[in-house]
Amino acid sequence: MTNIHIASATAPVNIATLKYWGKRDKVLNLPTNSSISVTLSQTDLRTLTSAATSPTFTSNKLWLNGEEHPFNDARSVQVLTHLKELRKKLELENPALPKFSEWYLHIVSENNFPTAAGLASSAAGLAALVVSIAKLYQLPQSYSELSVIARMGSGSACRSLFGGYVAWEMGQLQDGSDSKAVEIAPMEHWPQMKALILVVSADKKDTPSTSGMQLTVQTSELFKQRVDVVVPKRFKEMTQSILDKNFAKFAELTMKDSNSFHATCLDSFPPIFYMNDTSKKIIKLCHHINTYYNETIVAYTFDAGPNAVLYYLQKNETKLFNIIYKLFEKLPGWKSDRANYKQFLDQYTKLDKSVLNILDNFNDIYKGCSRVIDTQVGPGPQSTNECLINKENGLPK
Amino acid sequence: MTNIHIASATAPVNIATLKYWGKRDKVLNLPTNSSISVTLSQTDLRTLTSAATSPTFTSNKLWLNGEEHPFNDARSVQVLTHLKELRKKLELENPALPKFSEWYLHIVSENNFPTAAGLASSAAGLAALVVSIAKLYQLPQSYSELSVIARMGSGSACRSLFGGYVAWEMGQLQDGSDSKAVEIAPMEHWPQMKALILVVSADKKDTPSTSGMQLTVQTSELFKQRVDVVVPKRFKEMTQSILDKNFAKFAELTMKDSNSFHATCLDSFPPIFYMNDTSKKIIKLCHHINTYYNETIVAYTFDAGPNAVLYYLQKNETKLFNIIYKLFEKLPGWKSDRANYKQFLDQYTKLDKSVLNILDNFNDIYKGCSRVIDTQVGPGPQSTNECLINKENGLPK
Repeated sequence: MTNIHIASATAPVNIATLKYWGKRDKVLNLPTNSSISVTLSQTDLRTLTSAATSPTFTSNKLWLNGEEHPFNDARSVQVLTHLKELRKKLELENPALPKFSEWYLHIVSENNFPTAAGLASSAAGLAALVVSIAKLYQLPQSYSELSVIARMGSGSACRSLFGGYVAWEMGQLQDGSDSKAVEIAPMEHWPQMKALILVVSADKKDTPSTSGMQLTVQTSELFKQRVDVVVPKRFKEMTQSILDKNFAKFAELTMKDSNSFHATCLDSFPPIFYMNDTSKKIIKLCHHINTYYNETIVAYTFDAGPNAVLYYLQKNETKLFNIIYKLFEKLPGWKSDRANYKQFLDQYTKLDKSVLNILDNFNDIYKGCSRVIDTQVGPGPQSTNECLINKENGLPK
Repeated sequence: MTNIHIASATAPVNIATLKYWGKRDKVLNLPTNSSISVTLSQTDLRTLTSAATSPTFTSNKLWLNGEEHPFNDARSVQVLTHLKELRKKLELENPALPKFSEWYLHIVSENNFPTAAGLASSAAGLAALVVSIAKLYQLPQSYSELSVIARMGSGSACRSLFGGYVAWEMGQLQDGSDSKAVEIAPMEHWPQMKALILVVSADKKDTPSTSGMQLTVQTSELFKQRVDVVVPKRFKEMTQSILDKNFAKFAELTMKDSNSFHATCLDSFPPIFYMNDTSKKIIKLCHHINTYYNETIVAYTFDAGPNAVLYYLQKNETKLFNIIYKLFEKLPGWKSDRANYKQFLDQYTKLDKSVLNILDNFNDIYKGCSRVIDTQVGPGPQSTNECLINKENGLPK
C-alpha cells in the first residue's frame, strides 16, 4: 500500500477547577453550566494519536494503548461524521484534493501515563483524536470550533483543545454550536501553577460520570441552586482570579466548587459518593496546611473519583513539600530527576512542633494512595512527527 | 435532713427524620427550619433523672452517670431560670406552696445505654431534666410549653417531650415562644415502626454540631435552598406520610433529607464530614436491599456522626433481617431474649444467588461497626417512682 495519509498530534489532560456536572442535552453533550479547567503538562500526561486514511482501508479501526477497540459507538460516529463534513466542504471547494471524506480511518492512540492511575483519559483522547484528524484533513477551523466537535465525543474533552487556563462556555443554542472552549489565559500568563496528583486507591468502580450526572440532574433538589446561582457567580470570580493571578481567590473557589459538586452528588438519590476516607483526609490536610501557614498556598479538587489534584504556585513549593513530600515520599511517581526533593525532608525537621503534632495524625495517609504525579500547567495540543502508524500497511507500528 | 422534695422522670432519645441543622438564634436555639423525629423506646434508650430541692442545699449540683459535673453553664442556667420563673408564679398565686423557686437543685441523671455508643444523649438528658423539675415544681404547663424550655438547653431536646412522631415547629417569633415541639401522631398511631441503630466506629471526634451548623449557615451556598425551599416542602410531605402510614414515602423522604443535610455539611467551608466509608457502605446496602425486594422496606438516616439509624416496619423485619442479621450478627447488642434471630440465618440460605452475590460485597461491613441497638418507636417522657437521690441527704444513691 502506498496511498496512505497520516497525521499525528498530542493533546493534554485538563482538570476542572469549576466542575462540569450535568447535561442539558445528552446526545450533544451540552452542559447545564459553564466550567473552567487548568491544562496539565504533556510531559507527564498526554495522549498521542496518529490518524491515517486510505482508499484501501475497509473499515474504521481504532487501537488504544496497544489493543484494538470497536470504533462504531454513537459518540465516535458523531465526531467522525462532523469532521468528514468539514473535509467534504474543502473537497467541494477544491476538487484537486484527495477524497479523504469518503475513505475509512485508522486511529492509533497511546497515553504516556498508566491507565491504572485511574485518571480520566477520555478528554485527552478525544481532543487528540479530533486534532489529529483535523490535521490529516487540513481543516481550517480554529481550535475553538474544533472543540465543539470534541465536546460531542466527551464533554470535558473540549477544554483539552487549549493550554493554560480554559473556559467551556455552556452556550445557549439548541444545536450546541456555541457550547465551546475558549482560552481564559495561556500557560505563559501564569506559568507558576503546579499540580500534584495524589492517586487514591479505590475499592471498586465509581458510578460512571455520564449516568451519575443524569441522576444528579433528575434527583438532587440542591442541584438547581448550584447551576442557576452558585456556578454563574463563581465562573466570573474564577475567571477574574486567573486574570489577576490571585492564587488565594482561585484556590478558595476551586476547593469550594469541588465540595459543591460532590455535595450535589451526595444529594442525588440514591446518593453518589466519589470521595472516600482518604480523599477526606487529604482535604483536611490541605486546610491544616493553609491554616498553619496562615495563607492559602494549596487547593484541592476531586473529579468523579477519589483522586486528589492539588494546585499550588511554584514559589510555595518548599512550604508545601516540607509537609506533603514527607507524608507521601514512599509512593511511586516522584520524578527521578528532581534530586532536590531531599531538601524538603531536611526542612521538615525544622517545622514547629505544633504542625508536627497535627501532621502526625496524617502519618498513614499515604497508605490510601497508590502513586503521585508531579506536574504543572501546560500547553494545548501539539502537532508531532512521532507516528504510531506503519506507513506501509496502515496498521499500528 | 428531712425537708427534701424529690421527683423523677424518664425521657426518650429521638432520631430526626427531617434534620435540624442551622440556628437562626444561637442563644435561644431557634432553628432555621422545622424538623421531624421518631421517638425511640425507652426500654433501650432513655435518661432517668431525679430532681431534688431543699432549703438546706447550698448550690445547684449535677451528677451524670455517676460523676459530678459543673452545673453553671449558660444553657443550664437559662433552663433553670425559666423553670423557676414558672414555679414562682405558682407560689405567688398560692402562698401556701413551699418556696422551691428560691432553693437550689440537686439533679442526678443516668442513661440506660453505654455512653461509648456515641449516641447524642443530650436530647434525652435535657428533656428528662425539664420534665423531672416540672414534676417537682408541679408546673401546669403542657409538654409543648415545656418543650420551649428544653429547646433552650439543647435544640433537638424539645422533640423528646413527646412519644411517637414529633414535629419541632421552627416558629416565627423573636423570643422563640412559638418554636416548640408538637405531636404529629402518637406511638399508637403507627406502632409497627422499628429502628435498628448500627453504631459505627469513629476515628476521632466529629465537629461539634453547634459549631458545625454555624459554619454551614455562614459558608454553604446550597444551604439557603435547603432551608427555604427543600425542607418546607419535605416537612409537609413527611407529616402526611406519617398520618397516612405510607412507609415508602416516609422512607424516601427520610433518606433524602439525611443526604441533603450531609450535602450542606460537605458544601461548608472548610467542609464537614460526619459519615465515613462504613456509613456509605450502609447507605449502599440499604439501597441494594430495597432494590432487591423491589419495595422500600428500609430507610437510613445519619445525624452529626457516622452512626446509622435504620427505620423499617415490623411486617418487613424478616425480609430485612435475613440480610442485615447475617451481615451484622457478630456485633454485640442483639437482644438476648430474641431467640428468633436464628430464623433469619436459616432464611438467608434460601435467598437468590443474585442477592447473595451483591451481599458478599458487604461481608466485612460489620468490621466498621461496634454494636447494634435493636429498638422501635416509643412513648414520651414518663413519671417514675424509681429514684436516684437519697432522701436523707439529697445526694446520689
